[in-house]
Amino acid sequence: MSKRALISVSKKDGILDLAKSLDELGVEILSTGGTYKLLCDNSIKAIKVSDITGFPEILDGRVKTLHPKIHGGLLAIRDDENHMKQLNENGIEPIDIVAVNLYPFKETILKDDVMLEDAIENIDIGGPSMIRAAAKNYKYVTVLVDPSDYTKVIEEIKEYGNTKEETRFYLAMKAFGHTASYDSLIYNYLLDKNGVEFPDTITLSYEKSQDMRYGENPHQKAAFYKNSLKSFGISECIKLHGKELSFNNINDANAAIELLKEFDVPAAVAIKHTNPCGVAVADNIYDAFKKAYECDPVSIFGGIVAFNRTLDKRTAEELSKIFLEIIIAPDFEEDALNILEKKKNVRILKLKDGYVKEYDVKKVEGGILVQEKDEVDLYEDKLKVVTKNAPDEKEFKDLRFAWKVVKHVKSNAIVLAKDGATVGIGAGQVNRIWPTQQSIKQAGEKAKGSVLASDAFFPFSDVVEAAAKAGVASIIQPGGSKNDEASIDAADKAGISMVFTGIRHFKH
Amino acid sequence: MSKRALISVSKKDGILDLAKSLDELGVEILSTGGTYKLLCDNSIKAIKVSDITGFPEILDGRVKTLHPKIHGGLLAIRDDENHMKQLNENGIEPIDIVAVNLYPFKETILKDDVMLEDAIENIDIGGPSMIRAAAKNYKYVTVLVDPSDYTKVIEEIKEYGNTKEETRFYLAMKAFGHTASYDSLIYNYLLDKNGVEFPDTITLSYEKSQDMRYGENPHQKAAFYKNSLKSFGISECIKLHGKELSFNNINDANAAIELLKEFDVPAAVAIKHTNPCGVAVADNIYDAFKKAYECDPVSIFGGIVAFNRTLDKRTAEELSKIFLEIIIAPDFEEDALNILEKKKNVRILKLKDGYVKEYDVKKVEGGILVQEKDEVDLYEDKLKVVTKNAPDEKEFKDLRFAWKVVKHVKSNAIVLAKDGATVGIGAGQVNRIWPTQQSIKQAGEKAKGSVLASDAFFPFSDVVEAAAKAGVASIIQPGGSKNDEASIDAADKAGISMVFTGIRHFKH
Repeated sequence: MSKRALISVSKKDGILDLAKSLDELGVEILSTGGTYKLLCDNSIKAIKVSDITGFPEILDGRVKTLHPKIHGGLLAIRDDENHMKQLNENGIEPIDIVAVNLYPFKETILKDDVMLEDAIENIDIGGPSMIRAAAKNYKYVTVLVDPSDYTKVIEEIKEYGNTKEETRFYLAMKAFGHTASYDSLIYNYLLDKNGVEFPDTITLSYEKSQDMRYGENPHQKAAFYKNSLKSFGISECIKLHGKELSFNNINDANAAIELLKEFDVPAAVAIKHTNPCGVAVADNIYDAFKKAYECDPVSIFGGIVAFNRTLDKRTAEELSKIFLEIIIAPDFEEDALNILEKKKNVRILKLKDGYVKEYDVKKVEGGILVQEKDEVDLYEDKLKVVTKNAPDEKEFKDLRFAWKVVKHVKSNAIVLAKDGATVGIGAGQVNRIWPTQQSIKQAGEKAKGSVLASDAFFPFSDVVEAAAKAGVASIIQPGGSKNDEASIDAADKAGISMVFTGIRHFKH
Repeated sequence: MSKRALISVSKKDGILDLAKSLDELGVEILSTGGTYKLLCDNSIKAIKVSDITGFPEILDGRVKTLHPKIHGGLLAIRDDENHMKQLNENGIEPIDIVAVNLYPFKETILKDDVMLEDAIENIDIGGPSMIRAAAKNYKYVTVLVDPSDYTKVIEEIKEYGNTKEETRFYLAMKAFGHTASYDSLIYNYLLDKNGVEFPDTITLSYEKSQDMRYGENPHQKAAFYKNSLKSFGISECIKLHGKELSFNNINDANAAIELLKEFDVPAAVAIKHTNPCGVAVADNIYDAFKKAYECDPVSIFGGIVAFNRTLDKRTAEELSKIFLEIIIAPDFEEDALNILEKKKNVRILKLKDGYVKEYDVKKVEGGILVQEKDEVDLYEDKLKVVTKNAPDEKEFKDLRFAWKVVKHVKSNAIVLAKDGATVGIGAGQVNRIWPTQQSIKQAGEKAKGSVLASDAFFPFSDVVEAAAKAGVASIIQPGGSKNDEASIDAADKAGISMVFTGIRHFKH
């Protein structure tokens, strides 16, 4: 019995070669609409689906293949006598191969100012029905949603007279990946248009961007996936030089980029193990880097440095003096790039503009925590000086700077800053006094006249007392502890000024 | 013109009430198979879909509604003269309401030992086609996939003669959530059956388990979602007492549970800000808790404590002396529960057995990093004593204990342990010497004779030298630095034993 294939594709890549090969193999081709015309124009024999169904294409193509003569042909169990008898009684012939891909919903909604009507019109109904029917009946039917599988299918038919069952099973899997991802895009689009946040069901769909040698550790397999609609930040960086990014590279680079985005003025950010080890702002990135480097000239070794201005030659020269895993900037002067590219092992990333609202996700066993990203810096109207002394202008500038940095340090976090640069960073501790001690110890002499930022409030007066002893001039923290008075008293006693933000920045 | 509804449901909840109400409103009901029979049995007028299509239900119900008389009725644009003319010419009448839900694919694959054939047979083809067609044409068609929406729809029809367009748009969104999630389940099932890891496309589907007051911080909205197939761990804990879990509660509790799972012997784990602040094993959990508490009697305040044995009265009495956010155990003696429940603010969680293989996910801007979870402790055949001295049996026991703990401390991590208890935990630092100093400082006198575990190798000999100075007896670390010899020499010089594991445990 000769085979029949149904071909109806939105993306036409490779479809003529496939159709020609099938035709040469004696496979009868059914087709619809634009695909039918393309085949005819290229002298490939094809039968109109409407000639099979005896039903016209109606409603501007909305209803073409949704007919029992098609779906019976796709879904009949060939080994089931009754099924085959029913096909026979109803004048239905089996369909063995389906090559279908879907109306370009994604491409449509990615267009600027796409109208809701346009998006809705590009929701394919007939296509997913055929793909799903063929995939369900993979024991007998070969379903092709991806042009890169065409050749393999043709080769198998040439060699064995049919595709192998394992191939059909694999293609069925891909088919459901295609429909799942397609409907997920539609669903998320409609959630957005309905203004629904945190719906009862969430579906997330991602496309693989990069296989990885391994994950966080060499014994863990891993891959990097992009949101095909909402890609930006580290997911859209262009690698100008160096080896592939590792799992930890991407995670660290993301931390660097997120922190960098806090600053409008020229800034340099150094990251190790997702925590900053030096951050500074200045009139230019050369000075910013020198100041950031001074915060911790040891830990920066093997780290990531990111800038928010074009990287110039003199800064590149400074960077080339130390071993760095990654250097990130929105652009690179040619001279600068030449200098940096001399280092074989450094990855150089060009950071593209772009922002899309998306949610933060934390994986826990058996589920995920989903939250709005922490995209607030502070609310001006909640800022409140709570001490007798108020910070002067220069201190306030440093307080604002330190507050931006502490938001990006793992909790509990304390940051000491002075003259637009971190001088001590205490990260990721189970209580609040340890990162205070750590940052004071790191700052050394520079603690004097510095400012201190805390990501959460003070339950005791110990942090203020330690800060006072170290010569810290001013403190910024959320406030809101039952015990705020103790910290305010301690600050007043030491003549330190303290500002409450009324907003917390835990990060774990 | 009177309305028509198509009702064909797998889950029958609420369907009789809906059908009766529609019938009373003069809506003509079309139906198929089991739903048709149910309606007839309950004296609700219904027309067989096959009477509309003039085509029999064939292939054991695989093809019932896949017909232009149905899909034309669903998809026609009522305001389009041509569409309506085509309906008329082809004897098609509009369908205004669709109540359809799908074959129970999820329930099928959750059964023990389900056969592939069973799962495949439970992939619904006709249902998703109708749901998607109705949803696409939401301007005119009301689509119901969730029984909880039946009442609202009936009420709107009663009040306004039809549903409101905003309601239909909302229901269309839910419809695509239903099909997206359905196909995502199928896809992930088939990925598993094909043995495919890290496919080109991934789709993840989750069901909301809990709305939250806020996320990691009060200005971030958040919710907790469960994997409807693969729920376990914190996602399946039963809350026996206390307020709802917060975002940070769940994140911390998950860290506690994951660490707890490292131990077969009675163990107690205390967590703050996702890092352990005290861990111990003993012959019973009472002793384990006392030892874990001693590690850091300060930071445990407001933390989480988890046990891997039934919580008994005397341990409950100890726990009730301090303020804890959460207490977790696989079970609770009644006496113990009575004691703990006296505290209004503590959450008591019962941890259920269960494990499902799943991937770890880290969110970065515009994408996700996906990796195998770090589920390896160490490989026995890679363990190697690299120093002249070897650890004695007791030291080896502590090394193994400390190694399990350090895996769960954020990197860079150093753990000091002695007699089956942590005595110092250095977490989340940008270099390796700081957590070493931190843990030694914390251990104080207890550093003498303790063991040290490091999550990654030593680039310099400084950690060994600091450990030697503090009286540490033995060290466990991955090894593999170019500079291993320097650390081995320093250990030999100090008479410290050192073991290489050949495996790293970064955690960020």
